[in-house]
Amino acid sequence: MGNPQYVRAFAPATVTNVSCGFDILGFALEAPGDEVILRPNSDGTIRITRILPDSLDIPLDAERNTAGRALLAMQKALNLTIGVDVEIHKQFGMGSGLGSSAASAAAAVWAYNRFLDTPLQREELLPFAIAGERAATGENVHIDNVSASLLGGFIVVRSMNPPDVLPLPYPPELHCAVVHPHLELKTAAMREMLHTHIPLHQAVEQWGNIAGLILGFMQEDYDLIRRSLKDVIVEPIRGQVIPGFQEAQKAALEAGALGSGISGSGPALFALASSHEIAEQCGNAMLAVYRKMGLEADVYVSSINPDGATILEER
Amino acid sequence: MGNPQYVRAFAPATVTNVSCGFDILGFALEAPGDEVILRPNSDGTIRITRILPDSLDIPLDAERNTAGRALLAMQKALNLTIGVDVEIHKQFGMGSGLGSSAASAAAAVWAYNRFLDTPLQREELLPFAIAGERAATGENVHIDNVSASLLGGFIVVRSMNPPDVLPLPYPPELHCAVVHPHLELKTAAMREMLHTHIPLHQAVEQWGNIAGLILGFMQEDYDLIRRSLKDVIVEPIRGQVIPGFQEAQKAALEAGALGSGISGSGPALFALASSHEIAEQCGNAMLAVYRKMGLEADVYVSSINPDGATILEER
Repeated sequence: MGNPQYVRAFAPATVTNVSCGFDILGFALEAPGDEVILRPNSDGTIRITRILPDSLDIPLDAERNTAGRALLAMQKALNLTIGVDVEIHKQFGMGSGLGSSAASAAAAVWAYNRFLDTPLQREELLPFAIAGERAATGENVHIDNVSASLLGGFIVVRSMNPPDVLPLPYPPELHCAVVHPHLELKTAAMREMLHTHIPLHQAVEQWGNIAGLILGFMQEDYDLIRRSLKDVIVEPIRGQVIPGFQEAQKAALEAGALGSGISGSGPALFALASSHEIAEQCGNAMLAVYRKMGLEADVYVSSINPDGATILEER
Repeated sequence: MGNPQYVRAFAPATVTNVSCGFDILGFALEAPGDEVILRPNSDGTIRITRILPDSLDIPLDAERNTAGRALLAMQKALNLTIGVDVEIHKQFGMGSGLGSSAASAAAAVWAYNRFLDTPLQREELLPFAIAGERAATGENVHIDNVSASLLGGFIVVRSMNPPDVLPLPYPPELHCAVVHPHLELKTAAMREMLHTHIPLHQAVEQWGNIAGLILGFMQEDYDLIRRSLKDVIVEPIRGQVIPGFQEAQKAALEAGALGSGISGSGPALFALASSHEIAEQCGNAMLAVYRKMGLEADVYVSSINPDGATILEER
């Protein structure tokens, strides 16, 4: 491997929760995503030198930055002496519900891994990316975004603590449309509004749907996927406070989506579809709802990204 | 098909809930099970003529009997004029947690189907078996036992109402040990003791495990099955009131079980294992716990029964 002088890595945005899969399901998009550039420095430190766009309010202090904290955790655990200057290019909105902080952490560990004499397996890097995510979320860290961004594909978080993350097979034609209306919602507030207790009968309904969704994915049974992509617990609450959610979801379903819901804690919405074409129609339908409301919105149409974090350039 | 003069059908006992799968998972045993004998009568009625053993307190009134009610529902829905005399041979304990009432209903509809000029598919009979189960449970009917008994194999109840029951692939070597200690627990009371609301974080833990279990089954990943066969919601409550439960579960796990829990609402306990031999060891280990307590118990060691209800004899 030697000692590269420049490594540029990409890690994708991620959709999590995925209707019935609250806190346990996630998947990676082809785009957007964050890029992280690492250059070795001479003093052995992890130093965030630049975050683009400049307008973002993200700490340069490595301990308080998800990419920085991930690299510090990796450096410490593996007893690495090599320091790096870190440049972060954020390419999609923070607070979007698409795992912005997680993508930076995932790209950082994947880039830093190129400096190791014996690079680690992707799965072995997960604990460091999770440690990075803590810079954004504190001890109550969720590992769904960071797992999907680093590992790619669809993932199941069987257990958060200790982390037990499983790749979930899915139909190869599966596509996704994501609409990110330019609204600001606070993740912490979106979490606090959830009830600490839920009715047992709703929990049973939800886990029936999770079982159905996993079966549907593995058997490539679109009708079963469609029946199972429901959220009776979180969506009825969070959906109330995301302007346009009900209309956009309805528009996506009418455009042929297998299902549609809130990505993470929003405001981004997703729709899953059985082809690129249908996903595109879903994206357009959701976008039209926000245009009509006079809200700016980004739309991404993508297959499921099987790769997760990747190296774009190295020298 | 013609008009048989005698049909004897069998439907198996079933294990439901299966740790993390409360109200949504179930599977059929090879044995024990109930037998139902149908003989055509001349007056077009559904008449329960005999229930064995005689000591059982089961209504002969067809409306109040699960087999009778199932046949009445089928007769009515399909506009059938043929009446049958019904003999029910119960071969395992009522109130065991192994779906005794469901097995009688499943055997009855499967037998009655032989009298049809155009027999229905197994799945098409499910609504009638469910209607039968209502005679035992009232409107708040659970369809897991009756689905597993009629259809066989492992089943997922994606939705109870309307019924959406899915066959779940499982590792072919999977075996089960069931121990039924001779204790009486009332199903209704066992259900009432559950909390109507559960903590969201426990629900998340449970649905992570369900997702893991389904994946583990389909990928024949025994280690994943083992990690996922946990119940953080119901078992901690019901386990308290089933004498010997903790000890028997521990004994089964020490004997090599993939997981062990309460069947239905108990008192029967199950252990899943990756071979007949290990299942046998689990059964013996659980039995030893009850012997030591001075309690009588039945033990059944079985593969997963892929067939469900079957015809044993016809003439």
